[in-house]
Amino acid sequence: MPNPTAAMLVIGDEILSGRTRDANMHHLAGHLTLHGIDLREVRVVADDQQAIIDAVRELSGRYDNVFTSGGIGPTHDDITAECIALAFGTEFGVRDDARAALERHYATTGTVINEARLRMARIPQGAELIENPVSGAPGFSLGNVHVMAGVPRIFQAMVQSIMPRLTGGTPLVSDTVRVECGEGDIAIPLGKLAESHPGLSIGSYPFQGADGHFGTNVVIRGADADEVAAAKAWLQKLVAA
Amino acid sequence: MPNPTAAMLVIGDEILSGRTRDANMHHLAGHLTLHGIDLREVRVVADDQQAIIDAVRELSGRYDNVFTSGGIGPTHDDITAECIALAFGTEFGVRDDARAALERHYATTGTVINEARLRMARIPQGAELIENPVSGAPGFSLGNVHVMAGVPRIFQAMVQSIMPRLTGGTPLVSDTVRVECGEGDIAIPLGKLAESHPGLSIGSYPFQGADGHFGTNVVIRGADADEVAAAKAWLQKLVAA
Repeated sequence: MPNPTAAMLVIGDEILSGRTRDANMHHLAGHLTLHGIDLREVRVVADDQQAIIDAVRELSGRYDNVFTSGGIGPTHDDITAECIALAFGTEFGVRDDARAALERHYATTGTVINEARLRMARIPQGAELIENPVSGAPGFSLGNVHVMAGVPRIFQAMVQSIMPRLTGGTPLVSDTVRVECGEGDIAIPLGKLAESHPGLSIGSYPFQGADGHFGTNVVIRGADADEVAAAKAWLQKLVAA
Repeated sequence: MPNPTAAMLVIGDEILSGRTRDANMHHLAGHLTLHGIDLREVRVVADDQQAIIDAVRELSGRYDNVFTSGGIGPTHDDITAECIALAFGTEFGVRDDARAALERHYATTGTVINEARLRMARIPQGAELIENPVSGAPGFSLGNVHVMAGVPRIFQAMVQSIMPRLTGGTPLVSDTVRVECGEGDIAIPLGKLAESHPGLSIGSYPFQGADGHFGTNVVIRGADADEVAAAKAWLQKLVAA
């Protein structure tokens, strides 16, 4: 059975303007790989209602899971939760369970719940909350869309909260062979190796050492550990020759 | 006149598997902002022919410029150039000018042009080359699609090469007010500020200081420097009160 698939939607003007460097994509990608969920696509869109709705609908229809980051805080530019509700025609408003989660957290910090913070308790009907141990305001899963915060520390805590709920697959086995020559010098044998192992993904990533010499990391990935090992052995023998 | 728009397409299994952290998006985003080109969307797709073709066609039709990174090296998994040609039905093969660019560079490094490296001289007919002073193999622009390397040092050099060819717009003026309280405490006045300045984009970015206290960076952006300054002054007065 093929592994479940996933897409990520990063929401935020600050990423597209270059003000902020996204850190959540890399974090999520690594965790999904460990769980055998294939991340197939990532999109980054602005804090724009139509852009968010269009992307969520399209990705939700195409992949088994969609993970969003960003736009669920208390300010006027936090419009993600509302857009998700609009995308699926779901009722939307302050929910008692989300409000209780906020109150529990704020009781420990002495924070006052005001009108703005209460925005973060607005959750689509039928959605399941995602716990936020860092700052209280929950994320949520609506259907196959998992809505999480953009602040990396909170995003990471929410990924931790949600992982046990997801259906995983077979984690790919991955191994790397470091070759001390440029990609162009081993490209032809690598192509032959890839052709004779259609079940493996063979990636080639050039690097330049501190002394200026070029090298290549060859990453061999596949579901069958024996096949990965056989391909690795073949490549190591070739390089040693 | 509104600023020209842009999208970016990052191509590579290694980003989606979490092996590699993309650095090119942040670099390009900053440069486009300086040139008054609005980056509206970024997509990351795998080294998959149909995924690349579909994304390039869609983004090319929707935005003034599309920038791609990744997949133009000498190995079997480098399929971007071919996919761009397929996306636009353009003839594709080794071109003399691209081969000459490779030969000029390799003459300085003593590298041998073999069959694999010659793959990097395959350029769609009608495309304009993008110079690569780092490793010789050129990128190219075909219509509004600009195809560049994934290795960050080469990507950055290509961005440098191409920027003078692009039609820029009015760079937005941007200013930041650092506020020593949580987003929730200033969300309501911020919302009013945004409402009374529809020409400005007012972003709110929470942070947590080393001592654990929460703060907010408010970023005010707009085309009119006087309006940005007025909004900033209003906010500073509010915070000082």
